[in-house]
Order: sequence, then structure tokens, then C-alpha cells
Amino acid sequence: MRLLIVNSNTSAFVTAKIADAARAVAAPGTDITALNGLFGAHVIGTRTELAVAEHATVDLLARHAHEADAVLIAVSYDVALRAAREMLDIPVVGITEAALLTACMLGGQIGVVVFGARVLPIYQELVRSYGLQRRVAGWRVVESNAPYAAGDQSQADALTVAAAQSLVTQDHAEVVVLTGAVMAGVPARLQDRIDVPVLDGVSCGVRQAELLAALRPVKPRAGSYARLPQREMSGVGDALAAQFGR
Amino acid sequence: MRLLIVNSNTSAFVTAKIADAARAVAAPGTDITALNGLFGAHVIGTRTELAVAEHATVDLLARHAHEADAVLIAVSYDVALRAAREMLDIPVVGITEAALLTACMLGGQIGVVVFGARVLPIYQELVRSYGLQRRVAGWRVVESNAPYAAGDQSQADALTVAAAQSLVTQDHAEVVVLTGAVMAGVPARLQDRIDVPVLDGVSCGVRQAELLAALRPVKPRAGSYARLPQREMSGVGDALAAQFGR
Amino acid sequence: MRLLIVNSNTSAFVTAKIADAARAVAAPGTDITALNGLFGAHVIGTRTELAVAEHATVDLLARHAHEADAVLIAVSYDVALRAAREMLDIPVVGITEAALLTACMLGGQIGVVVFGARVLPIYQELVRSYGLQRRVAGWRVVESNAPYAAGDQSQADALTVAAAQSLVTQDHAEVVVLTGAVMAGVPARLQDRIDVPVLDGVSCGVRQAELLAALRPVKPRAGSYARLPQREMSGVGDALAAQFGR
Amino acid sequence: MRLLIVNSNTSAFVTAKIADAARAVAAPGTDITALNGLFGAHVIGTRTELAVAEHATVDLLARHAHEADAVLIAVSYDVALRAAREMLDIPVVGITEAALLTACMLGGQIGVVVFGARVLPIYQELVRSYGLQRRVAGWRVVESNAPYAAGDQSQADALTVAAAQSLVTQDHAEVVVLTGAVMAGVPARLQDRIDVPVLDGVSCGVRQAELLAALRPVKPRAGSYARLPQREMSGVGDALAAQFGR
Amino acid sequence: MRLLIVNSNTSAFVTAKIADAARAVAAPGTDITALNGLFGAHVIGTRTELAVAEHATVDLLARHAHEADAVLIAVSYDVALRAAREMLDIPVVGITEAALLTACMLGGQIGVVVFGARVLPIYQELVRSYGLQRRVAGWRVVESNAPYAAGDQSQADALTVAAAQSLVTQDHAEVVVLTGAVMAGVPARLQDRIDVPVLDGVSCGVRQAELLAALRPVKPRAGSYARLPQREMSGVGDALAAQFGR
Amino acid sequence: MRLLIVNSNTSAFVTAKIADAARAVAAPGTDITALNGLFGAHVIGTRTELAVAEHATVDLLARHAHEADAVLIAVSYDVALRAAREMLDIPVVGITEAALLTACMLGGQIGVVVFGARVLPIYQELVRSYGLQRRVAGWRVVESNAPYAAGDQSQADALTVAAAQSLVTQDHAEVVVLTGAVMAGVPARLQDRIDVPVLDGVSCGVRQAELLAALRPVKPRAGSYARLPQREMSGVGDALAAQFGR
Repeated sequence: MRLLIVNSNTSAFVTAKIADAARAVAAPGTDITALNGLFGAHVIGTRTELAVAEHATVDLLARHAHEADAVLIAVSYDVALRAAREMLDIPVVGITEAALLTACMLGGQIGVVVFGARVLPIYQELVRSYGLQRRVAGWRVVESNAPYAAGDQSQADALTVAAAQSLVTQDHAEVVVLTGAVMAGVPARLQDRIDVPVLDGVSCGVRQAELLAALRPVKPRAGSYARLPQREMSGVGDALAAQFGR
Repeated sequence: MRLLIVNSNTSAFVTAKIADAARAVAAPGTDITALNGLFGAHVIGTRTELAVAEHATVDLLARHAHEADAVLIAVSYDVALRAAREMLDIPVVGITEAALLTACMLGGQIGVVVFGARVLPIYQELVRSYGLQRRVAGWRVVESNAPYAAGDQSQADALTVAAAQSLVTQDHAEVVVLTGAVMAGVPARLQDRIDVPVLDGVSCGVRQAELLAALRPVKPRAGSYARLPQREMSGVGDALAAQFGR
Repeated sequence: MRLLIVNSNTSAFVTAKIADAARAVAAPGTDITALNGLFGAHVIGTRTELAVAEHATVDLLARHAHEADAVLIAVSYDVALRAAREMLDIPVVGITEAALLTACMLGGQIGVVVFGARVLPIYQELVRSYGLQRRVAGWRVVESNAPYAAGDQSQADALTVAAAQSLVTQDHAEVVVLTGAVMAGVPARLQDRIDVPVLDGVSCGVRQAELLAALRPVKPRAGSYARLPQREMSGVGDALAAQFGR
Repeated sequence: MRLLIVNSNTSAFVTAKIADAARAVAAPGTDITALNGLFGAHVIGTRTELAVAEHATVDLLARHAHEADAVLIAVSYDVALRAAREMLDIPVVGITEAALLTACMLGGQIGVVVFGARVLPIYQELVRSYGLQRRVAGWRVVESNAPYAAGDQSQADALTVAAAQSLVTQDHAEVVVLTGAVMAGVPARLQDRIDVPVLDGVSCGVRQAELLAALRPVKPRAGSYARLPQREMSGVGDALAAQFGR
Repeated sequence: MRLLIVNSNTSAFVTAKIADAARAVAAPGTDITALNGLFGAHVIGTRTELAVAEHATVDLLARHAHEADAVLIAVSYDVALRAAREMLDIPVVGITEAALLTACMLGGQIGVVVFGARVLPIYQELVRSYGLQRRVAGWRVVESNAPYAAGDQSQADALTVAAAQSLVTQDHAEVVVLTGAVMAGVPARLQDRIDVPVLDGVSCGVRQAELLAALRPVKPRAGSYARLPQREMSGVGDALAAQFGR
Repeated sequence: MRLLIVNSNTSAFVTAKIADAARAVAAPGTDITALNGLFGAHVIGTRTELAVAEHATVDLLARHAHEADAVLIAVSYDVALRAAREMLDIPVVGITEAALLTACMLGGQIGVVVFGARVLPIYQELVRSYGLQRRVAGWRVVESNAPYAAGDQSQADALTVAAAQSLVTQDHAEVVVLTGAVMAGVPARLQDRIDVPVLDGVSCGVRQAELLAALRPVKPRAGSYARLPQREMSGVGDALAAQFGR
């Protein structure tokens, strides 16, 4: 199974980290390609960068998804997830949606850790758009940029553990999700210090993408996810324009 | 007051229709400029086109909003509304949000008419994202492309009236919103045949934009709508890139 | 445009304060009349006083609204708002509803400041009745009667600023509404010390009333806001009784 | 136990019907007094009449409730219910709230029958204000004035049965509530023709009032239902004014 | 009226306490029988014990309910409540549901006190299953086993009072429910120290069961509570198997 | 990976059907054991049978789950799912939860087909307990027992297709879930005749169980899913009793 991972950011550091974590959890027959966005933000952290990344993501998928059996959108805002599901005939998974849905099966209410207060509302809107706010026990913000670079993570780890444990003891969370593609692989490192299961999006997303690829769902023939009709589209990359020319 | 109206579509016909309707309802001192998107769909009708329009909208606003006192996003999906509010220091209004909030003040539950079944779920997601689904009495779909071109509108009008009246009699709607920028000015033509107030987004949006411009709300200094920080951004138009360079 | 402002309280001090603040924000052509209730509470602060004010408000409107183009109910419980919308053929706006809906267009979740713990549940019921609880980030109570009299407001101001900032930093509010008609004009004084836009009901309500008057919505011919039918009504003021005699 | 039943309407016919039905279901030791409102609508059917009835109800209770152990508000809009609970030291029950809560204990989702489309939104707002909309399977409107007068009820009965059965078969209601004080005692007549339990507000309300009187709940010393403080109140009946003079 | 109280626990201490409290509040003509489960947990405190208790409860009811006019399930998880309502032709009440519904009639939002953090999520799921989460102001956990044995209760009482008062002052609860069958009769002892009405499930449940027995609701002939059809059932007690043999 | 599938029914026909379908979709290394409940209903179709099955399921798991790496509860009511998650140290998946969560990743609102009107409310309660009602576009009931036996399925298939297509065209469902363990493998047969992806619980459940087994979530050390404490438990099978003796 060929899994295309798109990181709509242009930061190669994060993409490499994602790819490593993804390969570490992928099933034996899964072949992973990880790509950066061709334009837009180095690391998305604002609503405006997200607006650009919506375009960058469908542009990138138009160029490369025809060689894949499934797509994982490895930006924790699950950018362009619904558009990608419409545009492509193969399953598309977002890392935050995947982590949340996987968490639902571990039982109980979910605690969510977010990196940076500025983006908290964006995550809350995302979870609400999935209709999953009912499953959220509470939110915690960790202010640290350490995970976005190599180097000592001990302080960021301590903050993350404290946030997670606070969700458990104060908000009665029974599972914790760490948002952010850079959290890929981090739960394994911190799990001993947190009393309930901890999940990250990339680990869950790779597996859910494999699952959906195996399930081979039919392309809808009705509704908002049906194949794109012929449409007039100008000023965009050829591959993307071609999506509307069938 | 200088009001910038952006229609993220590239269709000049719709933009002209919007501009005419906007000028017809604007207050005496309001000076209106209406612009099309520079790239993307002729008329947005799919999720993928919306993803492109997110970028096209912030690109357009980065180029032109510095000359305005308020912005009206005149695509009924309210595309890039939150990003625009973050990026700019002036009020930004979306036509569907404006119509819904205005409808709330006319009392009771709102019936919503949507043009085309394919886009119905997108509008439902939009209304839910505003936390306004509680105010919606029901939805009706009209299948007609007539409003997107000049020519006889009598058949489309009849379908629209029937949809609205069905919302009143079956779903007990007490006010009706016609979605779609092309519905600008249409309520006046149909009101006699519909038993409750009928609103369109452009008429409401122009007025709400004037209202917010007069209110002169402060630019947030905290949260997800605070001024953009300096960020690395590549491969986008200069004006847009410059937004991140302050 | 003739705007009738009714303060269902019998306190002339508050009404004068409202009228001043309203005139300060009204558009040039808006002619404002502000009236007190003829019976009931000096300043409404209990559910029982509200029950009386429901009657006092429709009584007052029956006497005076025929000379107006729109009505603003300037009691922050939006007392008799739905009844007034039914009884009259002109738009009616409530100050708290107006502030909340205006806040929705500034983006994000709303923090609400209430004066007095006793009335907090009443405001929470009000917001819920509008279907807007989803948009509320949190509530804060300020215990101070200072705003209801002339004199030094510095202590009340400090409490209000602290409440608002706590909503921003703790509950991630992205806009703050100060309830209470006596808060008219206060946001301008406090805005510098609060990191997100602060709104009061009178400033928003005057403008929304102007907006609706310009929109000239049709009187519903169906539903719970249709014109009053002939009904037997006894023991009330002549003007009110006459509303049922058409 | 002395139960005061207040019908905020001025119609003696309905009050007599209520009193008969109430006495038929009351426990042996329950002594029932049923009173009409002293001013306002003959039979409440609009929002404006409700606004007047809010006042009429607290006025009536201020005059008579001191001789009672519990109060039943026998207008199906549960008019002034919260105000009465605040003003009095004894339990107060509303007939629609009582029917809904009793229905909850019979299991499953509740079907609600309303008499007249005009008032349907008012009932929907009422149920929502109780936080009970989740328990409602669906609504049906019966258009008939027959129950408000003596005479043949067979046609109204047939419509009511059809509405109830439609709620069972179409909306999967597992219990049905007939709103309207005039439905007092009607379920017994129709139950054989409806496949799930049918309840009316008066029968449930009398019993819930007896239950609460036996429970003897303490008067709150905090919150919005605490005893009325001393307040300035003018232009109202002496008994009502006296409530604020303690 | 013959009331059967089933405590699905096997602990005779708690059952005796329940029976005493029930008889103290029951109406003169109410004859109470209280029974323990025949198998399962001493005192239910985990999800697994609840799963067993579901069976133990319907088993016990199949043996004994034919001699009763109503049933009270006196385990605060309201175990097997819906199954019992289906299986039997007489009313069945759960103590926590009864307390919550009774609390709704005392006005305002409900504070809920739970004994033991481990079971908090189970109660939250229960309240949500009743669609009553909207009425909950907040939750507090008391960690104490004292109520499950004879002996000094002063420390447990102090913790309970503190929890209840915190719900009043912090979460603005206007009525408090103490969960747990062992709280039967406790509110009377603590009410003086808590500012809003305090309810326990057994006191409310006995009365609501009497009320429903007097109401004599018809057995549903449709839906999920209709009489059990003939079904193949093996490996269970004879009385329970016989329920499926009609 | 060893997957234990428990069908809490005692019907061997359904269990065999489930096991066949499960093996058809399982990954190469997955070793499947499918077991029936030891007591209770032949095929669960009432609330009372479900109460018994709660016990039968934990009893069966206590006997057999120690030899497994994950458990799939293959009764579409997901009976005892939460208890099993608490009792065991390995992942436990319910087929309906698995189908719903998988459906969420295919985008849009979910249509749900239920077999038999009697059980519809039970499924609605289940979905609500997962907090997933927001994702449900609508429900359809098919009345047919054909799937529970060998023989011609063409009529049942036609009803199922009609129900699914009605969900697509009327309720705008964008994915359809067929509830019922006997629907295992049916989607493949019907997909050509339904315009959106169709899922069954067993196919999704096997894969989600494999996914969770690979993920190896830690056993919670806090909350309602933490390992069972030592408890007094009587009158149950030895294996089940032993779960409480650690």
C-alpha cells in the first residue's frame, strides 16, 4: 500500500520527523512518501497561513496523489481534509481527526493538549466541526517551540506531562491526545508519566489510512464528496486545473 | 466609509450583480469597490474550489484592503472570513453570517434556501461553525442555475418561493434566508409571495459592514484574531507575504 | 429615522444615561426618544420584577410605538422582546441580543460580564433562549452598584477590567460583552485596558435598530410573530387593549 | 394540603374545567382552590397576552398564595413559573413542565401535541428553556377550538388521536403529552386509541405539586430563587408591592 | 400501594438503610418491600459490576414484581431501569432519575455530588443518557466510604457540605442532588448548612413511584417499551425466562 | 494477533456468519476465535435481553479474553463494551461504534439503517451515548428477519437498498452504516446499488481491533477504566469472580 503523507507546511524538519514516525508504525507492506507544501508557511500558526495552506494542499495532492492508495494530511489542523476527500478517489485521513476517533475507542472523555494559546480556538473549531466536542473532557495549552527543532526536549516534555496529568486529575480525561504533527512518536516517550493512554495524530493517522485503504470504500456518486464535475478554473497549477477537466 | 466587497469567484457577471445590489442598499456615505478573485473558480460550487478560494481571498485582501474601512466577503460560503478577520485591522463581514445574524433579530427560527443539493452539506457545516444551527428551522434545496445568468428568472423565482413557503408551513420558519451572492436583491422581488421576512446576504452584509465600521472595534491584542506575527511565508504574492513581515 | 428606546425600569437616572449614550452613537438622521416604564421596578433585579416589566413594556409600546420606525428595548434582560416583535409592525431590538449578535461578527467566542450573582442565571437563560450559548466562552460576575449612580466609577471599572481580562486569559474569549443598560458607553472608557473588543448593548442596539429600520422587513403573515388577531383582553390600559381590537 | 391553582386566563370556563379535573386526580387530603387572572386575556394565545399574564400571575399569587402549601400554574405556557418560584416560599409547579418531567419517567422520547400552529414556537421555546428538547421525539399541531367550549368533542378527539398516533408511528414517540390546560382529563378518554401513554399537564401537575409539598424543600438562601430583597416597586397592586417590602 | 424497592447490590446494610429512609417518607397507604440482588457485587463501584447487576436486577424483578404496584430501583446508577420498564406492566423509577427530575421543578441548574472519582464518568454518562446534562451546573466528587457503614458521619458530612456549597458559590447551582442510595435521608441532616435545596434519590424516588402508581399509565402497545414478545431465552432463572414465554 | 470475537447472542448461525465475514477481511496474521454467549437470548431484540447479555458478555470475556490480543464485541448494541474495556487490559471494540467512527473518516453525515422499529430507540440511545448523534443524517427502519437465516435475501436486500438510498436523497447522508452483526459482508453485495459508501460493523470492527492491538495502548491507571480493584462479588462464574480478586 502506497501512503502519501502531505505536510502542508514548507518546513523540511517537521516533514522528516513525521516521515520517520510514520515509517516506525506503518505495517510491513506500507510504502510511505512524505511531501512538503510548495508554497505557504514554514510552520502554520495562524488563520491566514491556513487559508494559503488549503490551496497548497489540494495543489500538492493534484500533483502526487494519483500514485497513492491513501493520503494522510499531516498538519494537525487537518487542512483541506474535506476538499481532498472530494477531489480524490482514494481515502484521505487527517491526523487530528484520526487521533480523536481512535481515542473514542479507548473509552471515555478525551483530554486535548494544544501547543500555543493562539491556535487553541482553531483546534476547538476543528473538533466542533467533527461533531466531537461532546467527547472532549478539557483542553490544555503548552507554550513551547522546542518540539519544532532538534535539541533537548526535557522541558517541553515536562510541560506536556503536566498538562496531560492535569487533564486526568482535574477534568477526568480518560485518554489524552497530543495535537501537532511534531508530536509524532512523543507519546511513547511520555506514556510512563501519564496515567491514561496518550495518542498522537501521525501514529493514529498512518494506521487509519491503512485501514481505509484496505476497506476500499467506493467513491460517492452523490453528495458533496462526489467526483468533481467539469468546472472553469483559472490561475492555478496545471495538475489542479486538470482535476476539473474530466 | 469605503467598503471593499470581494467575490472570490472569478465571474464578473456575479460581481456586477453584487455591486449593483450593494450600492442600492448602502448608506449615502458608503463608497463601494467590488473585486473578483484573481485565480480559482468561475463560480465556486465544490469543496476543492473553496480550498483555492481561501487563498485567493486573502491574496486579494492583502492587495486591496488597506484602502478600505470594512470588507464584505460576498461569497455565500463566507470563504476565508476568519483568516481575513485575523489578517486585517478593519471589520470583515461574510454575507451568510450577516444574513443569519440579522435574521435572528426578526425573531424565531430561520429557514434556509440553498441552490444545489451538492453544496447543502457545506452550508450546513458553515452554519454549525457559527453555532447557529439551533436557530435553523429547516433547509430547502432549489436546483436552478438561472440566477447565475441574465434572462428570465420566473421559473427560478417560482421554485424559490415554493421552497420558502414550504419552510414556513412545514418547518414553521419565521424568517427565510436565501443563500448565494446571486440572490442579492431578489427578496424584494419575491417578498409579496412569501409570508415571512426574506433576507439575502449582500443586503444584510453591506449594512452590517457599515455598522461595524461605525463601531470601530479595536484590533485584538490576544487570541487567534490578534495581529499577524512575523512569519516565514514563501511562494505567495508580495502583498500577502508582506502581511507577515511587520 | 425615529427610534423609540424603552427602559422598562422606572429609574430616570438610568434612562438618561442610556439616552445620552444612544445619541452619541446614533447616525445623523436618527431621532431618539427614551421612555421609562410607567409601573414596576425602579431597577429590575429579580425574576418577579421582570414578570411585571413584561407587562409594563408592552403597555408602554402600545402607547408610543406608533410614532416610531424602530424600537430598542434598553433593559439588558431584553424584557418582552418577543412580545413586542409580535405586537408591532416595526423592528424591535433588545440590547443584549444586539450586543451578542454584533460580537459574533468580531470573531470567536464571547466572554460575558454580568453585574450581580443573583441575576447570572437569568442572563444564562436569556442567552440559551437565543441559541447562542455555543458562542459563549465564559461568564464573570462583578458585584458593584456604582454604575447605577453618578460618582466615582474607578473601583467598578477596575473590577470590570479584571473580569474581562480573566475571560480573555482563562476562558480564551475573543470579544467581551458588558451586560446592563448602565454599561452604555463604558467600553470606550475601558477598551485600552482590555485586550479584545468590548461591547455594550446600547451602542450595538441603536445601530442594529437603525439597520433593521433601513432594511424595512415585512410584517410576518404567518407564525408566532404575525399581526395580533382580535382577542378579548380586559383590565389593561386602553392603548394595549386597542392592539387586540383591529 | 392546600393547593392553589392559578389560571392566568380570565376565562371561567377553562378554570372550571381545570378545577374539576384537578379534584378528580388529587389525593384525599388535597384541598384545591382555582382562581382566574384578574386582568389580561380571556384565553392566552399570543406572545403579547403572555407578557401581560406574567404580571397577572405574580399579582394573583401575591394576593392568594399565602394561604396555600403549593401552587400549580395551570396555563400550559407555564407563565411566570420562575418568578413565582422566586417570590414564594412554597413549591410552584407548571403544568407543561410537570407533564414533560413525568413523561420522562415513562421512558423514551416524548411526542408533544400543540393546539394551533401560531403557538407552536412558543411551546418549543418553553421546552428548550427547560433543557428538555433532547427528550422530544416530535411535535404535532391540532387546529381546533372545540376543547375551549362545551359541546361535541368527537372531531377534536379524532384530530388529537391522529396527531398522537402519527407521533408514535412516524417519530417513534414512546409517550405523548397533550399541551393545554383544557386537555385536563382528556387522556383518559383517548388512551384506548393511542398506543403509548398519554399525559396532560393538570393531572401530572396536581400530583407533582402534592409531591413537592410533601418534600418541603427549603427556601433557597442563594441564587436567583432566594427570597426577594427589599426593592422599590411602584404602580402595582398592594399585595404584590408588599412582596418587596420585607 | 405496594412498592417494591430493589437494591441490585448484595449488601444488606445499604438495603436496610434505604428501606428505613423509604418508609420515613412514604405516604400512609404505601407498603414497602426492599430486596437485595441475588448475585453480583456487594456494593457496585465499577462498570463490570454494573454489567452483572443489569442481569441481577431483571432477574429479581421477574421473581417479585408481580406482587407490586410500582418499582423503585434503589441503586444510584439506575441499573436496568429501561429494561425493567420494558419487562413490567407497572411503573418503574430510578433513584437518580427521580432526584434529577424533582430537582428540575425546584428551578435552575442542578449541582451533583458523587462519591468517588472512579464512578464520576458513569454518572455523567447516566445524566447524559437522560438528556439532562443541560440542567447540570457542575459536579463534585467526595472521597469517603463512611456512608457505607454505621459510625460517625461527621467527616463525610463536612465533605459533602463543602462540595454542595462549592457547587452553589462557584458553579451557581440552585439545587443540589446527592447521588448514592446511601444518601437516603442525609439531606435532612445537612440542609441547614447548604444554601439551596438538597435532594437524595430515595426520598424523591419513593414519591415519584407513588405518583406514577396513582397515574396508572397504560402499558405501551408500540415501541421499545411494549410488552415482551415470545423469545428464546436460555440459562437464566425460571421467573426471568417466563417473562419471554407469554 | 489473536482476535476474540464475542457474540453475546446464543445463536450459532449468526456467530458463524460473523466469523466468516471477519476472516474474509482480517489481515494475514490475525487469528480469529468467535464465541457465543453461554446464557441469554437466542438473538437479542429487547431491552431485557440486553440486560442479561451485559452479564453474559463479561462472563464470557472473563473466561476467554486472557488468550487474546484484542476483543470485538459483535452484537450491534455494543453490549457491555464499557465494562469490557474496564475489565480487560487489551483493546475492546464494538461493531457499531467501529462502523460509526470509520464512517466519520469517509466524510459527511451518516445515514443509519436499523432492522426493526422496536430496537430503533435503543440504537439512537447508543449513538447518543457515543456523542455521535451530530454526525447522523437520519435513520431508516427495515422490517425483515430474512438476514437471520439462510435463504433468499433478495427482498431484504431491496428494502435495505431503498432505505439507504432514501437516506442519501432525502436526508443527504454521505455514508451509510448498516447496523446488525448479520449485516457482516452485506455492503459488498449492495454497494453497486447505493450511491455512497456503505459500511457494516464487523468489517470495520475487525480492522479497528487490529489497529488498536498494533497501537498497544497502555492500561489506564486512573479513571473509570482503570484495572478492577479487589471487590466482593458473589453468585457469578469463577472466572468472572476471579477478575475482582487481583
